[in-house]
Amino acid sequence: MTAASNRTVLVLNGPNLNLLGKREPHIYGSTTLTDVEQRLHALADELGLTVEFRQSNWEGQIIDWIQEARERGTGILINPAGFTSTSIAILDALLASERPIVEVHVTNIHKREEFRHMSYVSKAADAVIAGAGPHGYELGLRHLDTLLGNAQPSA
Amino acid sequence: MTAASNRTVLVLNGPNLNLLGKREPHIYGSTTLTDVEQRLHALADELGLTVEFRQSNWEGQIIDWIQEARERGTGILINPAGFTSTSIAILDALLASERPIVEVHVTNIHKREEFRHMSYVSKAADAVIAGAGPHGYELGLRHLDTLLGNAQPSA
Amino acid sequence: MTAASNRTVLVLNGPNLNLLGKREPHIYGSTTLTDVEQRLHALADELGLTVEFRQSNWEGQIIDWIQEARERGTGILINPAGFTSTSIAILDALLASERPIVEVHVTNIHKREEFRHMSYVSKAADAVIAGAGPHGYELGLRHLDTLLGNAQPSA
Amino acid sequence: MTAASNRTVLVLNGPNLNLLGKREPHIYGSTTLTDVEQRLHALADELGLTVEFRQSNWEGQIIDWIQEARERGTGILINPAGFTSTSIAILDALLASERPIVEVHVTNIHKREEFRHMSYVSKAADAVIAGAGPHGYELGLRHLDTLLGNAQPSA
Amino acid sequence: MTAASNRTVLVLNGPNLNLLGKREPHIYGSTTLTDVEQRLHALADELGLTVEFRQSNWEGQIIDWIQEARERGTGILINPAGFTSTSIAILDALLASERPIVEVHVTNIHKREEFRHMSYVSKAADAVIAGAGPHGYELGLRHLDTLLGNAQPSA
Amino acid sequence: MTAASNRTVLVLNGPNLNLLGKREPHIYGSTTLTDVEQRLHALADELGLTVEFRQSNWEGQIIDWIQEARERGTGILINPAGFTSTSIAILDALLASERPIVEVHVTNIHKREEFRHMSYVSKAADAVIAGAGPHGYELGLRHLDTLLGNAQPSA
Amino acid sequence: MTAASNRTVLVLNGPNLNLLGKREPHIYGSTTLTDVEQRLHALADELGLTVEFRQSNWEGQIIDWIQEARERGTGILINPAGFTSTSIAILDALLASERPIVEVHVTNIHKREEFRHMSYVSKAADAVIAGAGPHGYELGLRHLDTLLGNAQPSA
Amino acid sequence: MTAASNRTVLVLNGPNLNLLGKREPHIYGSTTLTDVEQRLHALADELGLTVEFRQSNWEGQIIDWIQEARERGTGILINPAGFTSTSIAILDALLASERPIVEVHVTNIHKREEFRHMSYVSKAADAVIAGAGPHGYELGLRHLDTLLGNAQPSA
Amino acid sequence: MTAASNRTVLVLNGPNLNLLGKREPHIYGSTTLTDVEQRLHALADELGLTVEFRQSNWEGQIIDWIQEARERGTGILINPAGFTSTSIAILDALLASERPIVEVHVTNIHKREEFRHMSYVSKAADAVIAGAGPHGYELGLRHLDTLLGNAQPSA
Amino acid sequence: MTAASNRTVLVLNGPNLNLLGKREPHIYGSTTLTDVEQRLHALADELGLTVEFRQSNWEGQIIDWIQEARERGTGILINPAGFTSTSIAILDALLASERPIVEVHVTNIHKREEFRHMSYVSKAADAVIAGAGPHGYELGLRHLDTLLGNAQPSA
Amino acid sequence: MTAASNRTVLVLNGPNLNLLGKREPHIYGSTTLTDVEQRLHALADELGLTVEFRQSNWEGQIIDWIQEARERGTGILINPAGFTSTSIAILDALLASERPIVEVHVTNIHKREEFRHMSYVSKAADAVIAGAGPHGYELGLRHLDTLLGNAQPSA
Amino acid sequence: MTAASNRTVLVLNGPNLNLLGKREPHIYGSTTLTDVEQRLHALADELGLTVEFRQSNWEGQIIDWIQEARERGTGILINPAGFTSTSIAILDALLASERPIVEVHVTNIHKREEFRHMSYVSKAADAVIAGAGPHGYELGLRHLDTLLGNAQPSA
Repeated sequence: MTAASNRTVLVLNGPNLNLLGKREPHIYGSTTLTDVEQRLHALADELGLTVEFRQSNWEGQIIDWIQEARERGTGILINPAGFTSTSIAILDALLASERPIVEVHVTNIHKREEFRHMSYVSKAADAVIAGAGPHGYELGLRHLDTLLGNAQPSA
Repeated sequence: MTAASNRTVLVLNGPNLNLLGKREPHIYGSTTLTDVEQRLHALADELGLTVEFRQSNWEGQIIDWIQEARERGTGILINPAGFTSTSIAILDALLASERPIVEVHVTNIHKREEFRHMSYVSKAADAVIAGAGPHGYELGLRHLDTLLGNAQPSA
Repeated sequence: MTAASNRTVLVLNGPNLNLLGKREPHIYGSTTLTDVEQRLHALADELGLTVEFRQSNWEGQIIDWIQEARERGTGILINPAGFTSTSIAILDALLASERPIVEVHVTNIHKREEFRHMSYVSKAADAVIAGAGPHGYELGLRHLDTLLGNAQPSA
Repeated sequence: MTAASNRTVLVLNGPNLNLLGKREPHIYGSTTLTDVEQRLHALADELGLTVEFRQSNWEGQIIDWIQEARERGTGILINPAGFTSTSIAILDALLASERPIVEVHVTNIHKREEFRHMSYVSKAADAVIAGAGPHGYELGLRHLDTLLGNAQPSA
Repeated sequence: MTAASNRTVLVLNGPNLNLLGKREPHIYGSTTLTDVEQRLHALADELGLTVEFRQSNWEGQIIDWIQEARERGTGILINPAGFTSTSIAILDALLASERPIVEVHVTNIHKREEFRHMSYVSKAADAVIAGAGPHGYELGLRHLDTLLGNAQPSA
Repeated sequence: MTAASNRTVLVLNGPNLNLLGKREPHIYGSTTLTDVEQRLHALADELGLTVEFRQSNWEGQIIDWIQEARERGTGILINPAGFTSTSIAILDALLASERPIVEVHVTNIHKREEFRHMSYVSKAADAVIAGAGPHGYELGLRHLDTLLGNAQPSA
Repeated sequence: MTAASNRTVLVLNGPNLNLLGKREPHIYGSTTLTDVEQRLHALADELGLTVEFRQSNWEGQIIDWIQEARERGTGILINPAGFTSTSIAILDALLASERPIVEVHVTNIHKREEFRHMSYVSKAADAVIAGAGPHGYELGLRHLDTLLGNAQPSA
Repeated sequence: MTAASNRTVLVLNGPNLNLLGKREPHIYGSTTLTDVEQRLHALADELGLTVEFRQSNWEGQIIDWIQEARERGTGILINPAGFTSTSIAILDALLASERPIVEVHVTNIHKREEFRHMSYVSKAADAVIAGAGPHGYELGLRHLDTLLGNAQPSA
Repeated sequence: MTAASNRTVLVLNGPNLNLLGKREPHIYGSTTLTDVEQRLHALADELGLTVEFRQSNWEGQIIDWIQEARERGTGILINPAGFTSTSIAILDALLASERPIVEVHVTNIHKREEFRHMSYVSKAADAVIAGAGPHGYELGLRHLDTLLGNAQPSA
Repeated sequence: MTAASNRTVLVLNGPNLNLLGKREPHIYGSTTLTDVEQRLHALADELGLTVEFRQSNWEGQIIDWIQEARERGTGILINPAGFTSTSIAILDALLASERPIVEVHVTNIHKREEFRHMSYVSKAADAVIAGAGPHGYELGLRHLDTLLGNAQPSA
Repeated sequence: MTAASNRTVLVLNGPNLNLLGKREPHIYGSTTLTDVEQRLHALADELGLTVEFRQSNWEGQIIDWIQEARERGTGILINPAGFTSTSIAILDALLASERPIVEVHVTNIHKREEFRHMSYVSKAADAVIAGAGPHGYELGLRHLDTLLGNAQPSA
Repeated sequence: MTAASNRTVLVLNGPNLNLLGKREPHIYGSTTLTDVEQRLHALADELGLTVEFRQSNWEGQIIDWIQEARERGTGILINPAGFTSTSIAILDALLASERPIVEVHVTNIHKREEFRHMSYVSKAADAVIAGAGPHGYELGLRHLDTLLGNAQPSA
């Protein structure tokens, strides 16, 4: 893990987020995931960070990527979407990563159905941001900037 | 989404259904998944529908297929099997699909173990059919025929 | 129990279903119970079945009718409506009936209030169909046709 | 439903209320149901309402009467007694009635056994009055007077 | 209430007990309800009691009969069957009856499904006998003999 | 405590009720708290009662006022609003007051979110009125008139 | 196990029953355990049974006695008292005994504190008798007489 | 409510936050509330916002301030601290405020004791930020900047 | 924090304790809070401690006083009364105080209503004394004497 | 029971307390049970009480000793240790004892694992003292001195 | 504790295990406890361990033996049987023992009744082996061999 | 399925086990998965078994491998890791496999977070071994050796 890699952030998007801006816009709004990616690159440039932006519907893929973050020593910005409340395997990968982690949800999950309230990911995340819409990704990146500036793994 | 595609139905089978007719026949009976597929093609011909029949043990694959149904505007006949009570990600894909959805279970899940009773998929399905054995697929296809005849996405 | 009686189906409708098509049409639709009865007679003719169609707001009446089905050896197609989640007495009558049983709900009860999700009737039914609207009765009758063709009591 | 009928109120009393004033007077007091009926007729005269007062130990009878209220367009003043916490069928009848509904309990059910606290009827009632003794019927009638004066079904 | 009436016992049988000895004999055995009635009359003769033996599938009927016991001052031997765990209305009738009450179950309900374990009737009964098969009725009658000999209402 | 003071009623309004008629009118309606106060004074005049009408967002203030009612021997008409389900301290004050207590809620709290259903205040109140809108205050005052007429503390 | 031994019944009394008739008489009555023993011997004589009557405050002793019943092939009449809801070890001993078992409680445990309602012993007992006071022992012995007459281990 | 006032944010701090940086630094860190206030003023200047920064240990005070925000049309940035999981009164004030609301927690409450996980405030907040330490206030202010730029009350 | 101040104890009494000895004497006894204060001063003299004795119905006041104890380095003897089971804010103040804490309840709260059993305060207290009546304050002061003698903050 | 015997206290120590001061000193401290006994004798001398100090790992022994206290009319100071949350038999013995009872726990059980929070013993104890370490025994003895001075059995 | 004693293992068998191989062989198999003991001695010889093999139906005896293991510094191989889910006292003894502990169950308790799933013993055991039949004892001894080889108490 | 294949064991490792020995060593120890594999091959040689050792972060892959075991007739040694408590699909694959199954966990999951206690896999496994560290794999292989020697599928 080099100092350089510490300024990289893997942005990991869980299932169905590829449909952001298209599905159920009354819940998720009309900003697309491509829009989010562009905004994050712009902000990353401003902050001197590098962003790698990915999405998958496959839980195994998300776990592999988290392990990659561990190997490379990057920060992790994760929107676990439908895996939030069901995947102990993702939680275990995050606990093993020893990296700074920020969890983002586009919607305020605490206002939605009961089964969306509990997040396994929150048990490993440093910070959690929910309900700020696509802007939440930017807030999350700003916080990772702070955490990575400390140049130390999250506790 | 064209009118033609509206007459197509993706039949999606979840984990271990490839063993249908072979595993635990006292619970699941002796009809194989290939038998089910053949019966469905026969009924589809009769009803003027097109059926595409698939099975996977991988949750990510099921989600991708549901998104494909969304893209192509087909109906969805789904037996989520072992993912029924555990996958919010599949629920989210179905909610995003804006397509007619019928959920089928070979067995009457309400007579089985407590942990099989709650179905996330039912929160998105238009109709749910359980316990009718392989015949349940045919009943489900008949109902999709009705829903697709309305030529409108499910509410 | 004679072979002839095996081709008869008692269709039992629980409380308030006499208002079907009139009450809360945004939930239950506009098809009346008389419409349902007519459709079932038409389908029964096609399948070579005899349908006797009844409705009551009185739990005791429903139990008596189930016992009659037991005596006469008919199939049972039941929409227990408001008794679904509260009547162990109806469950016991069904368990005692040793007849093929299909449970139908006009709406998808799993999308509605929590207290409608658990069905005592499902613990005795061979198959359960929910959310297919009035069409669900026809699907149920088709499945009873299959069960009665087996000419054997349900397990 | 005529304007005239809107000024009629069916007062429906559930099981064992025919024993009011006689059973367990330390809980229910010594006023009889006949006393309550007389007081209600007196108040109805004062308010320009017509009261029809009934009691039954049979759930089916209560449901039939609620359906009658729906047909005739009357108000409903109901003391569901022992059916309060167990009858979804009565709840469904009330939901279907589209009439103004006031629920009355002679005792404060929230001070009694845990199993009496939850009321299905309250999910349909416009107003709920508990613990005011027989006087609660009069308060309920006064409130129905207000609701019927609006000459509109309850939302 | 006369001393004479104190030596009469109403034996009230709940839903589906008319099928005793015929339905599910692996659970309920092969003794019929008529057998039970005959045995009780024989024992009543021996003990100098009078037994009136009734059965109904209708909850309202059971409540009316309990109220009759209250009026006439008889003892109550009740097998509430399917109403055991669901009827607060029957509980209330029993609480109002101020009569000696013995509850009988043919099977040991504590060994059966969870939903059969809790009995509302037990909250009013003086004694509860379960699992002694048809013999339980005789044990119950013997205990009522003791209670009626005390010539005092149950506490 | 003098006889005169027995004809006084403290009307205590909990947090945010000063916004009644202004906040969320689709839930709470458009009648303001000042309107309610005026109506109550009018009715009090008619009934020969004296009303003192107060509101506070501070739990400690509500408790002090309840203790004042105890000292002065007045009746208590309380709408605990947001303190209903959370304040054991208010419950204790009411239990200590030994005064007639009527609890009022503008809305039918049993139709709203689960966390609003349980009321600590109901464990001390003589009567509870919910869902009658601002009219509920008037019904409550009428019932206090009855209770105070008895000139005895609540049991 | 000989036929002779089948006519012997071990009567096992759990903790604190040696105080019966002395402790909390408003709950347990004034009959002493010695009285119970005498009544049982009298009834046993009448029925041609042999009774061995024991009491212990020590769970291990109760288990040893149940194992003795297994060895000798006797019936078991057990009042587990304070061990009813807490001892899986006693349950296991009873399950292993393969003997007829009747469980007796002096009081109706279903009317008492919640923590007394569930009985582990009931999961092994053939019959359960509660609330019949000391008379319950006699009823239990009568039922064991029936079971031993069948000369077969309990199912 | 003027456009100008829309650019003001009330920052409301709940109980014990005056001890931030002093109490339990292993949990809450060493930044003081005064530090937070200064940082927020600096960021507000940059964003063209006005910040009013307050703290109270008194729930009634917090409610009054939220009502003030409603009157003046400001944004609300709230760290409810110990009131998070217990105050429905604060929730009601926020629901009534019709203002943009961001909820901030210094620590990740989902990693702490179970009783801190549920937040009533989250049921009213637009966005929720937890675990970002004092930086969370700045992220919250940035998000309010976005919400106020929309110049519309939160939905 | 000086050594001298370590020998001072703030005695904090929660809501309604000003009514001690007057309200519900069958529960709380007839000793008044003034009596308690006098007894504590006498014992404090004997032990060489200084007692400051306070009571409030306002949660915010209690929190302020706990913060004062933190500032001045005193011991804390607290009877949280109605705030025991509802105030996380008081718990947080106590956790922040880093002072010796003894919690006292006049009654044995474990024998009372279920909702009084759980104490947030106990999660911070060094010792808990319940059910010893007013004497419990004296026992608590004796224990604080021991803790303060250690001249170290509580762990 | 003589007046003299009323000044004797049985001090009963449950399982593993013989290891006090030796096992897990970070939880239980380093004072041994012999130390505790000595301190209690010293205090008893001062108060004019007689202490009999015992320990057992056997639940049956504890019950026998409680029954002995009942016979001899002594006070009971009990640390039930591992039997606290599991022994209804000990609870029953205490309820039957009709003696003054003080329950002591060396640690504050409310800060430990969830399964240690509920105490059956507390349902019978007059007072409960937890978390005061070995000193708690002395506080308990002081309170028994008060209770025995009343020369009346506990209510 | 000598190095030699570290190579001794106390094998402690809970209630009813003396019936192993005789009771309910469809659940527990036909191997007797004597067989198990012989196999363990053979394996111990091979591994250079000494085994002392004991069984008791008395919880107090099990606790005494665990304390003996603590004194002598032996390993502990325990099958707690019916005490598994009910004895906090045994848990406490194990926690105090500071010895290597392996818990064995002949059956897979997770496939059996719900009340057998939770094990207090597992909270203290180093390793848990269930469902391996009598062979599980041998596996457990092999693991203790490893733990004792480390010559350190369990963490 | 040939006799030869019966001596092969598929060892299946779930998500994040590829990090064993590297992640969180205070929980999982420092032995790597490669170490485990080598030890297993050594032991397999000794026992005359063949081991195939695999790991995947993908649930679908694990299911496919279990189905392969079914096809080839091998034994299954599975450490389901993060899928233990969440995957009914893996449970169903195991139930369908009709092969001997041993479940292994490196840590004692019953000592960890509550959400790790329940294992779906245990509902299908013959034996379960937890907390024996990497040695648990060897114990598991030894037990499979026994099960495969029986040359019969697991019941």
